[in-house]
Amino acid sequence: MARNIQSLERAAAMLRLLAGGERRLGLSDIASSLGLAKGTAHGILRTLQQEGFVEQDDASGRYQLGAELLRLGTTYLDVHELRARALVWADDLARASGESVYLGVLHQQGVLIVHHVFRPDDSRQVLEIGVMQPLHSTALGKVLSAYDPVAHSEVVDSDRKTFTERTISGLQELENVLALTRARGYAADVEETWEGVASIAAPIHDRRRMPVGAVGITGAVERIRRDEELRPELIASVRDCARAISRDLGAARF
Amino acid sequence: MARNIQSLERAAAMLRLLAGGERRLGLSDIASSLGLAKGTAHGILRTLQQEGFVEQDDASGRYQLGAELLRLGTTYLDVHELRARALVWADDLARASGESVYLGVLHQQGVLIVHHVFRPDDSRQVLEIGVMQPLHSTALGKVLSAYDPVAHSEVVDSDRKTFTERTISGLQELENVLALTRARGYAADVEETWEGVASIAAPIHDRRRMPVGAVGITGAVERIRRDEELRPELIASVRDCARAISRDLGAARF
Repeated sequence: MARNIQSLERAAAMLRLLAGGERRLGLSDIASSLGLAKGTAHGILRTLQQEGFVEQDDASGRYQLGAELLRLGTTYLDVHELRARALVWADDLARASGESVYLGVLHQQGVLIVHHVFRPDDSRQVLEIGVMQPLHSTALGKVLSAYDPVAHSEVVDSDRKTFTERTISGLQELENVLALTRARGYAADVEETWEGVASIAAPIHDRRRMPVGAVGITGAVERIRRDEELRPELIASVRDCARAISRDLGAARF
Repeated sequence: MARNIQSLERAAAMLRLLAGGERRLGLSDIASSLGLAKGTAHGILRTLQQEGFVEQDDASGRYQLGAELLRLGTTYLDVHELRARALVWADDLARASGESVYLGVLHQQGVLIVHHVFRPDDSRQVLEIGVMQPLHSTALGKVLSAYDPVAHSEVVDSDRKTFTERTISGLQELENVLALTRARGYAADVEETWEGVASIAAPIHDRRRMPVGAVGITGAVERIRRDEELRPELIASVRDCARAISRDLGAARF
């Protein structure tokens, strides 16, 4: 039993390794990174390859992530209740705000984007579903950290990287921001993660009043703010959307 | 060694089980579906849960796919060379044709959609990246079956389900269509998969002249055809796009 579990943990570690940094690795790199004998690593890789979780490049012999992960990841989205209930409300928020909309949930040490609605104009935009955002600097991440105790302990333990000169990295300063987030019912990110970009997000609760995700808008700081202040009508739209999704999930109105 | 691999195969089978049909299953269902003792199944599920590949619903205790699959699946797309090279050409094809564009690769017994460009109008459309399409009835699938020997043997072995009254299920008839596809350099699907929907697709080759994928357009049959014939300018646009991507992958011009 213990042996079985160990091989699974090692396989998961390999997939994480292939998902980060270099992303195409040879057998020796993988074995040495995980402290495994080459034969052991090869046995796991061969099985992962056979199951479609890993692909091997014919020319270089290097390994990379496999197509089965995309298929399974898409199926994960299909059964995601929060996402299913949020789809229509997120479209409405994009239309009302004129900005792109993101829906995020806590995953590991960050925010996993499970839905993204493009800004309703003709500009070229890149879909960011499945992408991770940091907890301490983004509006979605601050909302999750303020309301979800698990997210809070993750953000306290994290290294809180500085992305811009406005990123809040100090723990006490961040705790103050999270307290303010809880008091106001929303969070903002004004050029704390990306230069020139601002976000506003609000929490989504389920029928047991548990925080299950966050929804927000992201756009050019010049559009999100007016006279150095977040535009109140955008805050209202984001909070309306979060409340609507929460009600759809069965949360009480008050 | 053999034991390790077995536990991985069982874990992969569980993920496939959770990806199909019911998608939320209890421990007993999973164990009996895979012919495993409950204790064995639980050990694997617990490890999968700990690694984020599986999530357990608090209320019902049922299992479903986990968020880590979405994160890894998105990373798979990031390193997909064919997809990266096709992005701009696919945008151009959507603009030139006015229809939605799909890029597909062979995965298991079907076509995995790795890129999807929406039809350039304001209509509400659902992103289909990560979705599977059948090999025998879609334009993308016929192209792969015509050019890729592995896809060909998959389509020969498959049960070739009938979706509409125009679906080609008989093997000899399908072989004729695949021969025609090779002779013409493109394939079509006129209401063979979805009523009212037609597609045109062409093959993408890499620098070793290997078929690595297919690109095509999909739209209302009334727009894709004129006077009962596929519109020649649409066929030309699709083939131009496939050639441009192939050249970008290093394929020779002739």
